[in-house]
Amino acid sequence: MIFLFTDFGAADIYVGQVKAVLQQHAPKVLVIDLLHDAPAFNVKAGAHLLAALAARLPAKSVTLAVVDPGVGGSREPVAVLADGRWYVGPDNGLISVATARAKHIEVFSIGWRPRDLSATFHGRDLFAAVAAMLARGDRKTAKLKKAALAVSFGADDLGEVIYVDHFGNLVTGLRAGKVPRDRGLVINGRAVRYARVFAEVRQGEVFWYENSLGLVELAANSASAQQVLGSGPGDQLA
Amino acid sequence: MIFLFTDFGAADIYVGQVKAVLQQHAPKVLVIDLLHDAPAFNVKAGAHLLAALAARLPAKSVTLAVVDPGVGGSREPVAVLADGRWYVGPDNGLISVATARAKHIEVFSIGWRPRDLSATFHGRDLFAAVAAMLARGDRKTAKLKKAALAVSFGADDLGEVIYVDHFGNLVTGLRAGKVPRDRGLVINGRAVRYARVFAEVRQGEVFWYENSLGLVELAANSASAQQVLGSGPGDQLA
Amino acid sequence: MIFLFTDFGAADIYVGQVKAVLQQHAPKVLVIDLLHDAPAFNVKAGAHLLAALAARLPAKSVTLAVVDPGVGGSREPVAVLADGRWYVGPDNGLISVATARAKHIEVFSIGWRPRDLSATFHGRDLFAAVAAMLARGDRKTAKLKKAALAVSFGADDLGEVIYVDHFGNLVTGLRAGKVPRDRGLVINGRAVRYARVFAEVRQGEVFWYENSLGLVELAANSASAQQVLGSGPGDQLA
Repeated sequence: MIFLFTDFGAADIYVGQVKAVLQQHAPKVLVIDLLHDAPAFNVKAGAHLLAALAARLPAKSVTLAVVDPGVGGSREPVAVLADGRWYVGPDNGLISVATARAKHIEVFSIGWRPRDLSATFHGRDLFAAVAAMLARGDRKTAKLKKAALAVSFGADDLGEVIYVDHFGNLVTGLRAGKVPRDRGLVINGRAVRYARVFAEVRQGEVFWYENSLGLVELAANSASAQQVLGSGPGDQLA
Repeated sequence: MIFLFTDFGAADIYVGQVKAVLQQHAPKVLVIDLLHDAPAFNVKAGAHLLAALAARLPAKSVTLAVVDPGVGGSREPVAVLADGRWYVGPDNGLISVATARAKHIEVFSIGWRPRDLSATFHGRDLFAAVAAMLARGDRKTAKLKKAALAVSFGADDLGEVIYVDHFGNLVTGLRAGKVPRDRGLVINGRAVRYARVFAEVRQGEVFWYENSLGLVELAANSASAQQVLGSGPGDQLA
Repeated sequence: MIFLFTDFGAADIYVGQVKAVLQQHAPKVLVIDLLHDAPAFNVKAGAHLLAALAARLPAKSVTLAVVDPGVGGSREPVAVLADGRWYVGPDNGLISVATARAKHIEVFSIGWRPRDLSATFHGRDLFAAVAAMLARGDRKTAKLKKAALAVSFGADDLGEVIYVDHFGNLVTGLRAGKVPRDRGLVINGRAVRYARVFAEVRQGEVFWYENSLGLVELAANSASAQQVLGSGPGDQLA
């Protein structure tokens, strides 16, 4: 199974091209879109979101993870085997939080290069082909070599909004298991209390709860927390 | 074949997680996205849209139908076999219009529960797994028991706008076969006449026609009926 | 493999219905979404975008190409075999640029009609079924007959913006191999210079480069060229 985590846009012209390459290199492997609207210019936020999503993915999967503002520059491609799951993408920190939180890690440089490598779409030309190779168990063609990550954000939580979903809920980089339930959170100078589910608060009231990825999420009952709080990606929590 | 009808958002982080669960429980079953932008807080509108879509789905399919503002509250999960098609989702009325219009109906409570059930994402944790069980013909694991729907909107049409498509066309809950062609419709105090196709009216003119689901739809030639009429979901027709 | 290139909207109710038909007629064929947000009322722009995308698709594929403002009118359905790739859609010019640029071309009229043909959704009722027939190698059921395209835009480049991606990059209908690198382009009275990749220009600066489809694209480093230039689909280049 190959999962896609990118900033290519779910409705844009890029994902179909990636899938065409995946199928040419691994015709029988199922491909699942995890997210194509990862924060485009915020690799660190994407790294925390990917780590939370990846913790629930099936073992023996391959995740193609591409948020790559430095494409065409000097950053290298990298493949990581973390607790049985493969990750393929740019070595710019995107994979690093999932990696830092895993128990068993192997990091590899990628020696394989396509005949035609565009200057700006390595997701299609390089990473997709390598992800397909690993999905069919072929490390040799990918020319993997033991290496280390050049960029890492570490395993620690991130006390800020990392993603806003289409309901206007604000996902943070804080793992909820570590935040006491009786402790309020403060965002944009406003205190927000804990509730277990939406039904426990009044219509329009903002609260925080443990979301389905295990993260602290700010939400509002039948309303958009983003609008109510005037808050968005990058805003800090205290 | 499993069809997905939800309000999880086509571009958001939720559908991929649902598909990962479906594939773990039913690896060989094809999954097709029917709609992930069902009206989020309007279960009744969603129920009418689902009924219209479902009438055209292949028999022997399973539809995972989740618009679930009451998740975490007291509503129960339910499975319905209606004219050969399975529906799985919350018992909040969403499945009820399709059910009420079917000739042969069996309604079941669902006894199966996952080891980990999140407070807010039963679509992933419970409904997806049960849909996969039914898709592979395994009623036993799902622990189905004959029951009745707790909430039903009935079989009657709904004389209001239930969905706006990306062209700005206004889909209503009226089945077009029951509306005389020589009868104008009134929305927001404005009369709208019938035409068979877009080419029969002037550029920018609003008309109603029988859409490809058999419903009355308000549209404008090469323009957005939503904008021209200043109308949207929930607006009544007379 | 079947590729979908339409203006049905990636998040709307139409694509799922098309896929249900494809699977009924060709259950084992993989379907890949290439683009569902093709310019809705601009068939010529869509034709140029499709030609650029199609040049990279695998041979032996079928592309269902539907941007069909004249549906219900007099335009005919058409199937084209161009350099080994099938295209199925309305004969309104959409397929014509890809066709005109191919070396080996066969154009066919389509004799097959479904029992139920809606007035406005031939993409589902007619084109999807025929695409599936061709994907499983069955020309006979489709009732193909040698013909010629009724509408063609020819093989020449188009010096205007044909698509805006979700980053705000402006894709043009000019093939970059034919535009000298030392030549600036002018759009909306503003000169734009060439650069190879994003990293070669300052933050916010607009430049043109050869995009991953081989087309001239106007972009801005870490910014939206659409916003910086105040430009969009249809704007001419000089």
